[in-house]
Amino acid sequence: MATAPSVSYSMTVRLEVPASGTAVSQLTTAVESSGGSVTGLDVTASGHEKLRIDVTIAATSTSHADEIVENLRGIEGVVLGKVSDRTFLMHLGGKIEMASKHPIRNRDDLSMIYTPGVARVCMAIAENPEDARRLTIKRNSVAVVTDGSAVLGLGNIGPMASLPVMEGKAALFKRFAGIDAWPICLDTQDTDAIVEIVKAIAPGFAGINLEDISAPRCFEIEARLREALDIPVFHDDQHGTAIVVLAALTNALRVVGKGIGDVRVVMSGAGAAGTAILKLLIAAGVKHAVVADIHGVVHAGREDLVSADADSPLRWIADNTNPESITGTLKQAVVDADVFIGVSAPNVLDGADVAAMADGAIVFALANPDPEVDPAIARQTAAVVATGRSDFPNQINNVLVFPGVFRGLLDAQSRTVNTEMMLAAARALADVVAEDEVNANYIIPSVFNDRVAGAVAGAVRDAAKAAGGALTGSGDLG
Amino acid sequence: MATAPSVSYSMTVRLEVPASGTAVSQLTTAVESSGGSVTGLDVTASGHEKLRIDVTIAATSTSHADEIVENLRGIEGVVLGKVSDRTFLMHLGGKIEMASKHPIRNRDDLSMIYTPGVARVCMAIAENPEDARRLTIKRNSVAVVTDGSAVLGLGNIGPMASLPVMEGKAALFKRFAGIDAWPICLDTQDTDAIVEIVKAIAPGFAGINLEDISAPRCFEIEARLREALDIPVFHDDQHGTAIVVLAALTNALRVVGKGIGDVRVVMSGAGAAGTAILKLLIAAGVKHAVVADIHGVVHAGREDLVSADADSPLRWIADNTNPESITGTLKQAVVDADVFIGVSAPNVLDGADVAAMADGAIVFALANPDPEVDPAIARQTAAVVATGRSDFPNQINNVLVFPGVFRGLLDAQSRTVNTEMMLAAARALADVVAEDEVNANYIIPSVFNDRVAGAVAGAVRDAAKAAGGALTGSGDLG
Repeated sequence: MATAPSVSYSMTVRLEVPASGTAVSQLTTAVESSGGSVTGLDVTASGHEKLRIDVTIAATSTSHADEIVENLRGIEGVVLGKVSDRTFLMHLGGKIEMASKHPIRNRDDLSMIYTPGVARVCMAIAENPEDARRLTIKRNSVAVVTDGSAVLGLGNIGPMASLPVMEGKAALFKRFAGIDAWPICLDTQDTDAIVEIVKAIAPGFAGINLEDISAPRCFEIEARLREALDIPVFHDDQHGTAIVVLAALTNALRVVGKGIGDVRVVMSGAGAAGTAILKLLIAAGVKHAVVADIHGVVHAGREDLVSADADSPLRWIADNTNPESITGTLKQAVVDADVFIGVSAPNVLDGADVAAMADGAIVFALANPDPEVDPAIARQTAAVVATGRSDFPNQINNVLVFPGVFRGLLDAQSRTVNTEMMLAAARALADVVAEDEVNANYIIPSVFNDRVAGAVAGAVRDAAKAAGGALTGSGDLG
Repeated sequence: MATAPSVSYSMTVRLEVPASGTAVSQLTTAVESSGGSVTGLDVTASGHEKLRIDVTIAATSTSHADEIVENLRGIEGVVLGKVSDRTFLMHLGGKIEMASKHPIRNRDDLSMIYTPGVARVCMAIAENPEDARRLTIKRNSVAVVTDGSAVLGLGNIGPMASLPVMEGKAALFKRFAGIDAWPICLDTQDTDAIVEIVKAIAPGFAGINLEDISAPRCFEIEARLREALDIPVFHDDQHGTAIVVLAALTNALRVVGKGIGDVRVVMSGAGAAGTAILKLLIAAGVKHAVVADIHGVVHAGREDLVSADADSPLRWIADNTNPESITGTLKQAVVDADVFIGVSAPNVLDGADVAAMADGAIVFALANPDPEVDPAIARQTAAVVATGRSDFPNQINNVLVFPGVFRGLLDAQSRTVNTEMMLAAARALADVVAEDEVNANYIIPSVFNDRVAGAVAGAVRDAAKAAGGALTGSGDLG
């Protein structure tokens, strides 16, 4: 599968070239013959004999970028200057900052923002802790918590190396939902320690977004924190993904005209995302699901499951899927399936496997950057194909969900997040695509569709308010 | 000691008054006869018969504010509207926010700030952890950590009620030193737990500012964190105060023409601030110090000290002060003393005590809001008087120190903060007051003097760079 040049491998190369002659015209040719793409060409200084040109180039990888630079160097008369990586430039000094909402110009400002005036505000909160949601940042803040154990597809790179992702997440929270999030990158991967730490830092936040924590620890950490805390705890890699998948599936089923209770769903992957997707699909009405992991189809009689803990995620899958107790491989399971959902590894299926699915097949191949099956090949026989990639239609992207979900939870001052709220979020997201818009290449809106976050937030807020009274026994949540 | 009306007890009262008659002219009189002060009077709507007027009023306390409002209500023809507390208004929704440094307008921005571009930045840091200080917020961020156990003079009000102070602190970090600080309010007061939590959250920060943690736990927490972490840990209530006191004392000694090694210093208070001040004064050259606490003068033979732990703060004081082993009360100790420094309780001394001090006496009465001795009375016989209050000359205010100290530490990428750096900070702060400016009413600059933070930062940065090589055995700190 060829990859297109991407701005995420974008660089700006400073060149000096002779003012006369063909050097300038050779620049674009040199880049394009190397498979790169010129996205900008700025003359930043000009004289009778020489030009200084900043060429901005998209490549497909770091080594490809190096190769393009070498080709430019080879052009007669060109002197190569500084090569700037645009992605790294944007990261210099970090991507986020803390800002004060009020100017501190003089003694009066100081005496209200800090001492002595602040003391009265502290006492008001000490007397009525609920006032913290009115008089402090707690009202609008979310901790983005990771231990760096499962960062993107990069694996266990640790807390410090995960910081750029958490900063990016915080930036997205602000951009799409006006939420103030701050990264908390933990220098421990011990489950008990993480639970204790997150419990301890909770007073300053109105929500906890767990991020990039590896399975199975993420399940226990989330479950224990939900039990312990009076603010919602949401593991985006699980539930964010599950909500987008359910929304996309809802619209894909509209396209093929099948009902969610009737379709046979085969999933590849029983990790954090896979398990969460499965649970939400079942909650939404899926009745026929089969899950395969690296050892094949999960069934109650499988050797590694006979002795598994009663509360292990795999045991839960075995008990709640595969009612016909089929066995065998993923490839065997997808024959005649209506829906394939992959959250596993590249290229576990090929075109023949997709062709063997039922008519009107739906294929969500979400492994990133390389999907479970080449989407171009899958599209030859499947009715609807979605991936996690931005360079194909129907991108399953958590950015569609987590800002709106937390906006709704915060607006409702919700103490929790439950399955009803997630189902509401998925319905709202699906409904952003109108009946006359939905088709095989448009089952899910763009992340830049400015109705998405508001629609998701509204649905979650309403569901949280409805749940609020029952959950806390008080009517003060609105 | 009468208190002047303060903006920290400022409110805006909305009134409707008859357009004719004397009601309007009675407003100011009513406020001032109640001891309040009108700081603003805005007509916000006007008609033939009525005016709507917003009167902004400074009071001395909450009950005083209520009293003023009642007096306004008593004026013939006045209809009282909404009363807005300006300090509370400034706190609505919190005082700080998270901001993204880059716009996220389109797919290109997203793919550089977040996935897939961010992955390359993560990998760069995974390969070279030092790059976190170049490519992430770690470069410029400080955690403001509290357990809410000793907040201002309010005591143990807990983590949530302390949040307004921590937000204010974060706002001051930004205002005076461009630092991105975020409040971390801990729902535990267990020493071991706090140490483990702060160690765990350290990867995302370049410094830890401990705040409002009660003694003696603060000593152990700070010492253990300094030992464990490779970023500086600074307990502002101890060291920030100590640095300002040393700077102020340096200039006060200039005023009275005495040398730091010659003066007899008597301190009241052996808590966190007192102990830190004492240690820094000794490091700066003070040779004759005596400390009194609630049980009187600290000496090695005192009953509660004979059996005290060898590493208890009080034991340290007994071993390092009072070489003549004097005993008795604070009042006895201050006779003939050159310097009194109080970080204890209101009104432990009176005018006669100050009069009994040596000629050219220096009195720092820092208990807040009510000092150890009325500064107006102390000033009758003492040569120099300083307090923690903003309504007397010579305010000892940590805001003069902590922003610059951390700016210097962050700029030097310092792994630690040591006594040399604190002495450098104090010298730099003292030197902001020029030789021809220093006098009994100006021993310390204003917090709004815009040379302060830069001077302190520069001195700390230089001291940190000088210490860096020796402390870490590498030359990469600059």
